[in-house]
Amino acid sequence: MAVATQSLEELCINSIRFLAVDAVEKAKSGHPGLPMGAAPMAFVLWDRFLRFNPKNPKWFNRDRFILSAGHGSMLQYALLYLYGYDSVTIEDIKQFRQWESKTPGHPENFMTAGVEVTTGPLGQGIANGVGLAIAEAHLAAKYNKPDTKLVDHYTYVILGDGCNMEGVSGEACSFAGHLGLGKLIALYDDNHISIDGSTDVAFTEDVSKRFEAYGWHVQHVQDGNTDLEAIAKAIEAAKAVTDKPSFIKVTTTIGYGSPNKANTAGVHGAALGGDEVALTRKNLGWEHEPFVVPQDILNHTGKAVERGAGYEADWNKAYADYKAKYPQEAAEFERYIGGKLPDGWDKVLPTYTAEDKALPTRKHSETCLNKLAAVLPELIGGSADLTHSNLTEIKGKGDFQKGQYQNPNIHFGVREHGMGAICNGIALHDSGLIPYGATFLIFTDYMRASIRLSALSQAGVIWVMTHDSIGQGEDGPTHQPIETLASLRAIPNLTVIRPADGNETSGAYKVAIERAKHNAPTLLAFTRQNVPNLAGTSLEHVAKGGYTVVDSDGTPELILIGTGSELSLAVTAAEKLTAEGKKVRVVSLPAWDLFEAQDAAYRESVLPKAVTKRLAVEAASSFGWHKYVGTEGDVVSIDRFGASAPGGVCLEKFGFSVDNVLAKAKKLLG
Amino acid sequence: MAVATQSLEELCINSIRFLAVDAVEKAKSGHPGLPMGAAPMAFVLWDRFLRFNPKNPKWFNRDRFILSAGHGSMLQYALLYLYGYDSVTIEDIKQFRQWESKTPGHPENFMTAGVEVTTGPLGQGIANGVGLAIAEAHLAAKYNKPDTKLVDHYTYVILGDGCNMEGVSGEACSFAGHLGLGKLIALYDDNHISIDGSTDVAFTEDVSKRFEAYGWHVQHVQDGNTDLEAIAKAIEAAKAVTDKPSFIKVTTTIGYGSPNKANTAGVHGAALGGDEVALTRKNLGWEHEPFVVPQDILNHTGKAVERGAGYEADWNKAYADYKAKYPQEAAEFERYIGGKLPDGWDKVLPTYTAEDKALPTRKHSETCLNKLAAVLPELIGGSADLTHSNLTEIKGKGDFQKGQYQNPNIHFGVREHGMGAICNGIALHDSGLIPYGATFLIFTDYMRASIRLSALSQAGVIWVMTHDSIGQGEDGPTHQPIETLASLRAIPNLTVIRPADGNETSGAYKVAIERAKHNAPTLLAFTRQNVPNLAGTSLEHVAKGGYTVVDSDGTPELILIGTGSELSLAVTAAEKLTAEGKKVRVVSLPAWDLFEAQDAAYRESVLPKAVTKRLAVEAASSFGWHKYVGTEGDVVSIDRFGASAPGGVCLEKFGFSVDNVLAKAKKLLG
Repeated sequence: MAVATQSLEELCINSIRFLAVDAVEKAKSGHPGLPMGAAPMAFVLWDRFLRFNPKNPKWFNRDRFILSAGHGSMLQYALLYLYGYDSVTIEDIKQFRQWESKTPGHPENFMTAGVEVTTGPLGQGIANGVGLAIAEAHLAAKYNKPDTKLVDHYTYVILGDGCNMEGVSGEACSFAGHLGLGKLIALYDDNHISIDGSTDVAFTEDVSKRFEAYGWHVQHVQDGNTDLEAIAKAIEAAKAVTDKPSFIKVTTTIGYGSPNKANTAGVHGAALGGDEVALTRKNLGWEHEPFVVPQDILNHTGKAVERGAGYEADWNKAYADYKAKYPQEAAEFERYIGGKLPDGWDKVLPTYTAEDKALPTRKHSETCLNKLAAVLPELIGGSADLTHSNLTEIKGKGDFQKGQYQNPNIHFGVREHGMGAICNGIALHDSGLIPYGATFLIFTDYMRASIRLSALSQAGVIWVMTHDSIGQGEDGPTHQPIETLASLRAIPNLTVIRPADGNETSGAYKVAIERAKHNAPTLLAFTRQNVPNLAGTSLEHVAKGGYTVVDSDGTPELILIGTGSELSLAVTAAEKLTAEGKKVRVVSLPAWDLFEAQDAAYRESVLPKAVTKRLAVEAASSFGWHKYVGTEGDVVSIDRFGASAPGGVCLEKFGFSVDNVLAKAKKLLG
Repeated sequence: MAVATQSLEELCINSIRFLAVDAVEKAKSGHPGLPMGAAPMAFVLWDRFLRFNPKNPKWFNRDRFILSAGHGSMLQYALLYLYGYDSVTIEDIKQFRQWESKTPGHPENFMTAGVEVTTGPLGQGIANGVGLAIAEAHLAAKYNKPDTKLVDHYTYVILGDGCNMEGVSGEACSFAGHLGLGKLIALYDDNHISIDGSTDVAFTEDVSKRFEAYGWHVQHVQDGNTDLEAIAKAIEAAKAVTDKPSFIKVTTTIGYGSPNKANTAGVHGAALGGDEVALTRKNLGWEHEPFVVPQDILNHTGKAVERGAGYEADWNKAYADYKAKYPQEAAEFERYIGGKLPDGWDKVLPTYTAEDKALPTRKHSETCLNKLAAVLPELIGGSADLTHSNLTEIKGKGDFQKGQYQNPNIHFGVREHGMGAICNGIALHDSGLIPYGATFLIFTDYMRASIRLSALSQAGVIWVMTHDSIGQGEDGPTHQPIETLASLRAIPNLTVIRPADGNETSGAYKVAIERAKHNAPTLLAFTRQNVPNLAGTSLEHVAKGGYTVVDSDGTPELILIGTGSELSLAVTAAEKLTAEGKKVRVVSLPAWDLFEAQDAAYRESVLPKAVTKRLAVEAASSFGWHKYVGTEGDVVSIDRFGASAPGGVCLEKFGFSVDNVLAKAKKLLG
């Protein structure tokens, strides 16, 4: 194939292929196969359809593009480079997969402008795409007017076989079909190869039929390697279907162009090797040195800069008109996309005294959510089919359903993992929405990959988790978290808060909302059962992660540390010990990482090194607690699985009683 | 509806319904709706099809029954009681959901004989069913002879809307379709209600069409409430299809019989209340007191005892003939189902000296797996599409595929969660098979719910996890575990082993195999990168969880503690410090829980309390390490997400170097 016979479009596609091939070759690491096969569909999409402004990657009304098959990251980096983003230069491409480069192994939104979400863990990207499409639909329903479509963009996703095998994608896509998200368009790189070889060894289902079953509009491009017009027609047709998401199966050849490795697993995740690269160059008629893209190609793709500036200018003009006509909506919209909170928003959070009625903290959570929703209409979310257990409904507002996208209450169904990835997508729409997702605390296990990604990819989500201990009761050990708090506290960048009562619940929401606006997730753990409101708790102090609730007269002999429902046990035990003449301090430690973030002097003031007799009380695993109780302290904990019985019985049997706390405390006091 | 007009079968079905209604009412907790709606299909299945021996619930060739919708546990307890199991008496039913009862909130195989797997976390049961069917197909292919079907049973599953929404069920069912598991028959209780109300709020896909897309044989029973013959015919038809798993959608009414609550979410998960119970009794013509089942019903269902004894006697006779004809196969089969290991099996595990070549521990793992497979043909498993990264292939043996069920190498596809639940099912087939499932360590996040269930439900699985740190390298933070080890170590009953070299890898497999035969899971964490073989490591000592690798002359001033790839850093640092005249001990701590299980004297001998200067080195989160380093110690750890760069660069940049260990050690020494 000589260069002369190739169209400019073919040359553009080959430039994508060879940027990928050569970057992987230089790094001696990476995945050339997907970019080589998916370059045609990606080129058609970016060149003819995708609306973006490369010089302002955050332009609000851009189409969103997700490479769900994130291992093919060089596809995305090549596109960002060719289409004029400043975030990826040719030098960056040469630094593919190197320390602190803008071109890491998988697309990372926090490293590279133009990357919308972090992909790589398979199936997450397409599920994030459902979240982006939900965010678009919601904002469009709220802000668009008959004369102005302020919010009006598509979400495009390229996904592969791996994404389609993962359950998380199935959950999210079933839900997208239910919601009829017409502006979500997925291109499935159907290349029949995964790491273990042909998909025939494990994956022979009829994927298109499955998406039809989900209620998607489904098409098939038979020759995704060369039939650019068929790809374009399919995307046109997908855009024309407005009441269903679209799934376009595009059959391709992985490693297209490599004479000996195309259509094999060998080209999936390893460099081609020098000889094969040379053969591939010859085969595709690509005579340029590595990392050299001819100017005529750059001239063509570079037109995106002017085009993009035009898109944004048009939108800015439309927005100016909108603002003039609809100042109130515009003010709210600007606050949203500016990531601002309204003045005094936190004044709605209630405080309590010890005389107030004992309630479950999940009930306090419901109160906070509803009071906040009145001043923060950017709250949108719901539960994975436990709405009335998690108490996450925003009352008086409707359900987010097909044709009712303006409403904030999302029924995710029994799809925890999909919910997680969808919430991440909503947050990373970057439009000020604050998504929340709820289930029982134990079922964070089902969605842990998404929770981790919220922390890694700086998605400002609030995870609302109820039934946070063996106090859950009769459902038994399958439903009772033990190690769950520890496993979540260990995740970097995720603040886990387990409030003790009404005041701390309000404080937890204050932290969570502020963190969300700063693109950081927070996980809140609430009780199923009643807890008393305590005299010493504080809304404000939750932000410090730990603080003294009850203090002794002078240096304490013993420090009792509690969280959540067990703080009241510590307080009551301390009262009894104090009555016996002991000097006892009680520390509430609802958020470990926030406490660690305080300066040493503050931490010392709460947990003085000199006081080595320390007893922690938490109805969960002791794992991790020795950091606070030290080698001389002790923990009232549960280091086995729970049991089916009424919650109060479980707590009592497993030692979460004042008597047992007193006994352990006295043992420590000697 | 008067009793007189009801057939005996209808009475049996009503007895199931009212055992559920009354038990939930007494407990004031539980889920009456599913048992009331699914009682007809369950009755037809148990009464006409299911082959079991109630007086020997572990009879090998029994049909397996799984209630995947585990919240409907009273359905299963009612059946166990009516059909003559000793494990559930009427007194046990009265103790539903009470402390230490045989009738916990969700079915627990370790509490109640006759329960095959632990369900409740939705979607797991049907995926376990795929594992049971794989085990059956595998053993049948290995042991059956033209004249004797030694292994020949069905796996029946009742699942609900919740199970069908969960991604894990989709993964496993797609795989079951691929494998053509003809003896797996799933009955879908299609009742249109989940906790949030009508499934119309979240779940409107065409489930049957989806199962067709997976390659299942699909049927629909339109009236699952009363049309017993239609249910029976569908099960007959399902059994007749031998090359595909069968999915029978059975449309029912949740809470059938309750005049005011049937077909509402109100009957899903709460007691009906006294008035409604009375109305339901009247409506269904059930005049008996709570927990009273008329003798004619018990007489009918009780026939299962004789029937079951007959099944087992027939099988025993066939087995005696088989044993006479095929003594070699019978000996192996008996060893399997007896849970025994062959004498001297562990002698195949290799040991190494410091002169042996540095290799990744995943490579040592491959060696162990292959050497073990030669003496333990009960090993069966594979990877979630990372076979040649995890190095989990048993070489020279074929792939487990449709028509090749005798082979041990399973290609799970990119379905970690499904793999997890399938492995649990294989283990809980209770036939001596040792399943293993592999992926990158980070992707335990995708399958954590299944890993937890392996620990809870006593499933002897080996979880083979490779690429166990930032040493993973270029794939970057999405693929690099940080908090993962901590989060897994926190799970009760799960032994996590991170071996340092060849000897410790052999020791890890020795522990894992023995644990598997004792129905306990083990998770092994292996490096991607080379590690040296160390002089002081020991195969045998891994079982102690921690031991001294390098000791000082006299009481140490400092103890360095390492695991996995970082143990060699500790050893090298200790050599340098010793050369400088310091007294330094190095402790290897590959398995925390095994170390905790040692007596106090042993633990003190390894980590003497008096030595407070302790430095741990692990390329992972510090979370949990303070238990071992105490308040005066330190940890060389990584408490942020990783980065994309070559593995060696990552390790060096994040401080996993001899120099940094030395620097921290010297700081501690003062």
